[in-house]
Amino acid sequence: MAGPARASEEGLIARYFAPLAGPGADGLRDDAATLTPAPGHDLVVTADAVVAGIHYFAEDPPASVARKALGVNLSDIAAKGAVPRGFLLTLALPDDWTEAWLDGFAQGLGAAAEAAGCPLLGGDTVRSGGPALISVTLLGEVPSGTIVRRTTARVGDRICVTGTIGDAALGLRMRLEPGAPWAARAVRRHASAAMDVSDGLAGDLAKMLGAGRTARVATADVPLSEAARRACAAEPALIEAALTGGDDYEILCTVAPERLEDFRAAAAAAGIAVAAIGTVISGDGPPRFEMRDGAERVFAAGAFSHF
Amino acid sequence: MAGPARASEEGLIARYFAPLAGPGADGLRDDAATLTPAPGHDLVVTADAVVAGIHYFAEDPPASVARKALGVNLSDIAAKGAVPRGFLLTLALPDDWTEAWLDGFAQGLGAAAEAAGCPLLGGDTVRSGGPALISVTLLGEVPSGTIVRRTTARVGDRICVTGTIGDAALGLRMRLEPGAPWAARAVRRHASAAMDVSDGLAGDLAKMLGAGRTARVATADVPLSEAARRACAAEPALIEAALTGGDDYEILCTVAPERLEDFRAAAAAAGIAVAAIGTVISGDGPPRFEMRDGAERVFAAGAFSHF
Repeated sequence: MAGPARASEEGLIARYFAPLAGPGADGLRDDAATLTPAPGHDLVVTADAVVAGIHYFAEDPPASVARKALGVNLSDIAAKGAVPRGFLLTLALPDDWTEAWLDGFAQGLGAAAEAAGCPLLGGDTVRSGGPALISVTLLGEVPSGTIVRRTTARVGDRICVTGTIGDAALGLRMRLEPGAPWAARAVRRHASAAMDVSDGLAGDLAKMLGAGRTARVATADVPLSEAARRACAAEPALIEAALTGGDDYEILCTVAPERLEDFRAAAAAAGIAVAAIGTVISGDGPPRFEMRDGAERVFAAGAFSHF
Repeated sequence: MAGPARASEEGLIARYFAPLAGPGADGLRDDAATLTPAPGHDLVVTADAVVAGIHYFAEDPPASVARKALGVNLSDIAAKGAVPRGFLLTLALPDDWTEAWLDGFAQGLGAAAEAAGCPLLGGDTVRSGGPALISVTLLGEVPSGTIVRRTTARVGDRICVTGTIGDAALGLRMRLEPGAPWAARAVRRHASAAMDVSDGLAGDLAKMLGAGRTARVATADVPLSEAARRACAAEPALIEAALTGGDDYEILCTVAPERLEDFRAAAAAAGIAVAAIGTVISGDGPPRFEMRDGAERVFAAGAFSHF
């Protein structure tokens, strides 16, 4: 017989999470789920965690915390050209968790998972002994051999980003639904390398290029939201925060020049805005950002770190 | 450019975890890995987390913590009749983590992963803001449609367990290598239902059977280690702790009577001891344990809970 405490965990799962379970998850009554990639497809797997007080504010609405926990993984999968198939959730709760928080979390998670076509397959619920921690493992699939890697950009490729950059870093309201998860097919067909922008555009671009390749970026071409544009117009120094802050969860990718128009068209067909912001060039050192005043800037400590 | 803090996370990954990376993981340089089940196989996925101070002692040797974090998932996968293919690791570190701890953890993890044929595919490293938390998502595979579920036991089936039960609950040294991970094939071929014993034999058996079915168990047939046997002989009340304590990570399964000898033989061929301890019967209520004195006991709050 399960004791009262254990019954509580199973009760929580049955009440809040079983409704989110996908095929193969057996209603979350078992310890494992099955998933079979479509014939001729590779599975693509990623895991990212968010922690209260580090990656989000403990007082954030629980539905938005859930969206973020899933979203940071959806953008990783999309950047690989993969479509999501399902996810596992490790939810570590603080001692003062409430049913109201869990209810809001589960509702936000369910809505985000349904929008992404990505059901819950399983997971674990534990006490954290500290702040809340949410770890998601996301499973997606790509036609065999077509995963788009991070470090395969070629000199001469154009550098592109989806959506807009910098809202989170400027303390502005982020779009609730970044376009990244819907850009997978366009990325898979046309990008030479891709990653999601999770630690700031400048730092993530540096990670993407590595030794022997760097980039020249036209800062004026970096897409900003209307609110971010107004803020940067009023206070030009804010552009640095927009370029180096984290949490964009858009896709950064490189595309051969002759494929750029096809990439734009494929993204537009998926409803995703794409901006070409620069070019991969030979050389070492951090990417060079040409600022509006004509000066060239590099961001030596650009990447935002959650660690 | 990555800042010093971020460089530290990437440095940690390159130093401690990249050597554990399997094919498809791209040396952990990307945000995602690929995995393709063998043709005609389903993927089986599970996730379990352990937290310092809750599931293990913070002062436990880091190599044994790593073995446990992987082992609790390996037994889940084996109980489904699946063989492991790879895993993702979310490692949330306390503020006072040390390189020595991480070094020991990575070495233990690498040894356990190699023994199980289960390489690292990816993951995330974050600050926990509290105690250490280790969440593992394990991916395995079974021939399509052959997953062994938890709640599919039939009345008349014999109840079996691998290895020995109760050492962790009695505070005795657990075997470093429970047999569960190597019993997958025998389970898949012969078991009608299976799960791992993670929350105590009595409680887990109750969860396995559910409404309309219960069990009669001969306590004398429950396999104990030599040390546990001596302890229970000296203090008979300890048997209750052995039957209800958690953390065995052996496999509990049911087998039709006519297949029992084949199951034993298949397990023996894998080097795994199997004990038949009782029978599934019609009825409701918790499993009944026939004690050495002839009395019948039930354990109403039997399952050990970590939550």
